[in-house]
Amino acid sequence: MSEKEQTHTPISNLGEFGLIDQLTRNFSLHHPQSILGIGDDAAVLDFGQQKTVVSTDLLMEGVHFDLMYSPFKHLGYKAVIVNLSDIYAMNAQPLQFTFSIAISSKFTLEALEALYDGVATACKHYGVDLIGGDTSNSLSGMAISVTAIGITQNYVCRSTAQVGDYIVVSGDLGAAYLGLQLLEREKRIFLENPAIQPALQEHTYLIERQLKPEARRDLYEWFKAQNITPTAMIDISDGLSSDILHICKQSKVGCVLFEDNIPLHPQTIEVARQFNISPTTCALNGGEDYELLFCINPKDLSAVENVEGLHIIGKIVDASEDCHLVSRDGRAHKLIAQGWNALHTK
Amino acid sequence: MSEKEQTHTPISNLGEFGLIDQLTRNFSLHHPQSILGIGDDAAVLDFGQQKTVVSTDLLMEGVHFDLMYSPFKHLGYKAVIVNLSDIYAMNAQPLQFTFSIAISSKFTLEALEALYDGVATACKHYGVDLIGGDTSNSLSGMAISVTAIGITQNYVCRSTAQVGDYIVVSGDLGAAYLGLQLLEREKRIFLENPAIQPALQEHTYLIERQLKPEARRDLYEWFKAQNITPTAMIDISDGLSSDILHICKQSKVGCVLFEDNIPLHPQTIEVARQFNISPTTCALNGGEDYELLFCINPKDLSAVENVEGLHIIGKIVDASEDCHLVSRDGRAHKLIAQGWNALHTK
Repeated sequence: MSEKEQTHTPISNLGEFGLIDQLTRNFSLHHPQSILGIGDDAAVLDFGQQKTVVSTDLLMEGVHFDLMYSPFKHLGYKAVIVNLSDIYAMNAQPLQFTFSIAISSKFTLEALEALYDGVATACKHYGVDLIGGDTSNSLSGMAISVTAIGITQNYVCRSTAQVGDYIVVSGDLGAAYLGLQLLEREKRIFLENPAIQPALQEHTYLIERQLKPEARRDLYEWFKAQNITPTAMIDISDGLSSDILHICKQSKVGCVLFEDNIPLHPQTIEVARQFNISPTTCALNGGEDYELLFCINPKDLSAVENVEGLHIIGKIVDASEDCHLVSRDGRAHKLIAQGWNALHTK
Repeated sequence: MSEKEQTHTPISNLGEFGLIDQLTRNFSLHHPQSILGIGDDAAVLDFGQQKTVVSTDLLMEGVHFDLMYSPFKHLGYKAVIVNLSDIYAMNAQPLQFTFSIAISSKFTLEALEALYDGVATACKHYGVDLIGGDTSNSLSGMAISVTAIGITQNYVCRSTAQVGDYIVVSGDLGAAYLGLQLLEREKRIFLENPAIQPALQEHTYLIERQLKPEARRDLYEWFKAQNITPTAMIDISDGLSSDILHICKQSKVGCVLFEDNIPLHPQTIEVARQFNISPTTCALNGGEDYELLFCINPKDLSAVENVEGLHIIGKIVDASEDCHLVSRDGRAHKLIAQGWNALHTK
């Protein structure tokens, strides 16, 4: 372990404003639309004639993340990424975000620097500016709140899917959920016997999907390059089932999904079986995949059809036909929204 | 007690999305700049040629509010107001905000409806649109995060005060801090003997300043009407001392404040003495006044001088002269920033 890693500076040494200065000293503004950043009552932005999109998330320790297995750097990165994902899901380019934390005084400066290092990495990878935030004390767990801002000429919302559209999803689903199950299992084993080292090397794909997800910037850029505008779009944060139901409810349509077409990573299939869960259930209800789920007009089918990493998983139908999944045996199962309860058990 | 007040609906009955629908069903968008609100991955806004300002706050139970004496409606109202205050402090008009909460499942729907009732009252009083948010579970205390957005032709930041400027503050200072001390005292008495009713009627001004502060929209509008632009501005959230030091540090100037000119309400003076604290200390370090502290060019002095509710409390001087308060006996005392530690004891 290096010298640097051994330093433990109590944040109470710095004072609130000293802490903010310390954590944000290496962030600078890059977008011409970012006029004034951290350090005033508010940030100042300049948006010309495009539309501005705004998304926000509040992440709580013990609910959305567990500091026992979330490295601070990954946590900072993920907190930003989940918000950028919402901006891409509007067919918009994220430009700026605010980042607020509430923390107990037990945290060290080094831990918070690692957190902000993750934030800085997200800034660099996704070309976004940190423009402000709030740092405060918490008497209990840690809380992180991020608000992301983007621009678009052509926003895509959830309420505009049309009967006859194809339903497409990017990447693969269910992996982040199984990554979480693996981390929770190893945590239990470790708590029972701290001498046992976690056995996670075999399933790094699943662990990475949970701890260090990426937002689909590439897909947003691909839509732009191809001149394709989805008819409706959402990012998969709650799980395929819940998220397609959002589109259907808000668009006043139904859908049919085909189980056979749902993209699954080989590790997802393998580990789901270890846990005695159906891989499809992981894809439907797991969530946190941060893939994009979108609908396209049939005229755009040929452009999407043979693109690696895009999967046509179903069709939009009339509302009277409701929302179903057709399983491999050909039977139709009504889709059910997860949500609050899923949140409790996640 | 009415029938309605006796209803206690566990929020777990509703599911996450049902809860959001229920809480936000009476909010609608009023500004032409608010294109798309709650219910998608992000809100969509349209800003023409003006500058956009963005401010965010994260409020934690037990640190920023105490549910033992903060009625939910007041809490919802205050959480919005403290962010609008930041927008006015930029010389901007707040138009929209996001409102996120993390709550344990012990809360009832009725409690959250009261919270959102306060949010709705703030929307109405200040003409702002709720455009989104996040609702999630908390394993410990409640957290509230608000991000406010506004527009301005002419933003005013903290870093542009000039030597020779007059320092002006609106309203009176220190009252919110003493309101908190009264509430804390009555809480301690109640916890020792629940039969004793709180004695707060005599000091409703102080209690209201703490529980239901207002943002200085009127002053923002007055600046506009008078065609006055402050040279620098901040809202008083941490206390006069800390906030004038922000202006001085960022503007690279010094200041001299005159104790005799600091505006104090009669109840502030009376109750400060009861608590054996100097009223000036309450004004300097108490915070949460949400008054505006600003600097003006000497040419604008005559416009400000005789306006009721505006108080010229000092002057900006060269940085080499540092930041001082001249007390009633004519002695100069160096101003000291509060901050992290104040946060702990508040």
